[in-house]
Amino acid sequence: MEGKLLMTPGPTNVPERVLKKMSEPMIHHRTKEYGKLFGDMSERLKDVFQTKNPVLTFPAAGTGGLEASIVNMFSKGDKVLAVSIGVFGDRFIKIAEIYGLKVDAIEVPWGRGVEVDEIKERLRDDHKALILTHNETSTAATNPIEEIGRFMKDKKQLFIVDGVSSVGGLEVKMDEWNIDVLITASQKALMSPPGLAFIGVSDKGWEALKSSTLPKFYWDFFSARRCLEKSVPENPYTPAVSLILGVNEALKMIEEEGLYNVYKRHEYLAWKLRYEIEKMGLKIYTNKRFLSNTVTAITFDEDGIASRIKKNMEEEYKIVIAGGQGNLKGKMIRIGHMGCVNQEMIDKTLYALKQCL
Amino acid sequence: MEGKLLMTPGPTNVPERVLKKMSEPMIHHRTKEYGKLFGDMSERLKDVFQTKNPVLTFPAAGTGGLEASIVNMFSKGDKVLAVSIGVFGDRFIKIAEIYGLKVDAIEVPWGRGVEVDEIKERLRDDHKALILTHNETSTAATNPIEEIGRFMKDKKQLFIVDGVSSVGGLEVKMDEWNIDVLITASQKALMSPPGLAFIGVSDKGWEALKSSTLPKFYWDFFSARRCLEKSVPENPYTPAVSLILGVNEALKMIEEEGLYNVYKRHEYLAWKLRYEIEKMGLKIYTNKRFLSNTVTAITFDEDGIASRIKKNMEEEYKIVIAGGQGNLKGKMIRIGHMGCVNQEMIDKTLYALKQCL
Repeated sequence: MEGKLLMTPGPTNVPERVLKKMSEPMIHHRTKEYGKLFGDMSERLKDVFQTKNPVLTFPAAGTGGLEASIVNMFSKGDKVLAVSIGVFGDRFIKIAEIYGLKVDAIEVPWGRGVEVDEIKERLRDDHKALILTHNETSTAATNPIEEIGRFMKDKKQLFIVDGVSSVGGLEVKMDEWNIDVLITASQKALMSPPGLAFIGVSDKGWEALKSSTLPKFYWDFFSARRCLEKSVPENPYTPAVSLILGVNEALKMIEEEGLYNVYKRHEYLAWKLRYEIEKMGLKIYTNKRFLSNTVTAITFDEDGIASRIKKNMEEEYKIVIAGGQGNLKGKMIRIGHMGCVNQEMIDKTLYALKQCL
Repeated sequence: MEGKLLMTPGPTNVPERVLKKMSEPMIHHRTKEYGKLFGDMSERLKDVFQTKNPVLTFPAAGTGGLEASIVNMFSKGDKVLAVSIGVFGDRFIKIAEIYGLKVDAIEVPWGRGVEVDEIKERLRDDHKALILTHNETSTAATNPIEEIGRFMKDKKQLFIVDGVSSVGGLEVKMDEWNIDVLITASQKALMSPPGLAFIGVSDKGWEALKSSTLPKFYWDFFSARRCLEKSVPENPYTPAVSLILGVNEALKMIEEEGLYNVYKRHEYLAWKLRYEIEKMGLKIYTNKRFLSNTVTAITFDEDGIASRIKKNMEEEYKIVIAGGQGNLKGKMIRIGHMGCVNQEMIDKTLYALKQCL
């Protein structure tokens, strides 16, 4: 069955091989067979996170991963510094505030990433953490987390990164860049259907969460880790077995291609796409210094064009792209190029876009 | 590909037709196509819940559904009456206590359901709700929720039911039996892989949750309902699209068979299984008045037999059954018969069990 091409910033195309794996008969989650599968997937996640610490898995959307990080790491009244460069940065702040955190927010004008100097200036001694989004799909901008991570070295504050639309597509070195909590999800660069959130926690993070007093059961990091580290790895409650089968297969594909080749492919295709888009005379929304290699945003001055293009692309060319979010609704199209994406898909998208203009 | 037969109390066998549906190319969750799918599934869920109110969907395990019910319906310090007849009743109480509820617990001896008279006696004016498990898989016992529901009519207390291993297999009439919050999950009688929790809320429930002050974002019922009721139904964050495709297909199968035929099939197969088990001279654990029609528990006086049978069944006959939980570990086997189960599967299981003895 031929589906639509998903050039969206998630869910992304799921490779045939992953879909096939997920359609195998269901296995039970209290068996050795499942324990091996779950253990294997968790090991592969460590490679992609570039961490020596265990990566936890929750049956949840990426947003659940953000919420889990807040309720595990903090207590009511904790002060944090949080950076927002778009919709998902705002969401992370909203969740933190709902749980009673006092958030000092750096609201970066849309289309840009944060300046490291601003973080240096604003991070205070009474902040318990710095929270930010690595790659913001709503504006197609990326924060310079490597540089920020180097600044965070030996700081007492935790460094918490939403890597939902970056991990597996953009380089992220959790341990080397001093990231204490790194969150991602199955449906972006990890090429699988949505429904799983993954969270890596550093040694410093594990130490810090001992003092968290926010209530938690479903999201409890300690109990997830305890179950993962049993001789036959398992979960505190029923895991999303078929999605775990899928992600394990997708991670094998990343392994076979080579993680750094995967990054380079993303980089190359993003450059190629942007080059051709500019050649068409279209306007790339994001500031050049903060361009994302997993998603590209194009804005139109005239109202209505963006929506018409989006509609045409889907109906006539079977290519799904995204529109603008927040204030940019109706004025922007966003093309995702993460995970299962190749030269042919980029060419098809460019061809269709040209025809629609 | 031939898999193992899952005669477990969840995850259960996923029909070929559902697996196939889930292996179709990924669709995007902000499209009309998805809106129709999600809307259709949600309507079908209402039929199975036997309610006129919307049924909400969360990317989560059933345990997430229990947690969601607590954080949406209550505030810290609220008093509730909760019944536990096994592991899952205990879990519901634990979650409630973690979130600061004051729980009066009726701890029923394992192997039985609660007596309605005990609820009548113990339910007090300052209780905000009565919480219980419909079908307890750890002991293969069922609570008489119809009778309890009739008693709850016009009471000011909410009636909250964990229907994870019952809805779609045992008769549950949410509206007629005055249930205010009913929770289930995808991987039991709904014949799909794990990863989705479903929650129905009555009018009285919607009224009550306005005054809840526990923090929530991921589990927020109001925002889930608002999104579901848009002209193109959607979700507050990325939904587990492939699982929704699967569940919608499974619900179509229930519709085609006829919901009451599905109940009758469960009833018949459960009777048949128990009859043959007793003929073998084995001991059924559960008290006759509270027998479950989705799972059967057998106990052995001698240690070790249960574990050996479980192992043999899986290794030699490719039939996965479950062991005992809690104090019954090593002394019990549990055979699940919910969802995708037929006469042939029951016969195979009985044959293998006979050989293993």
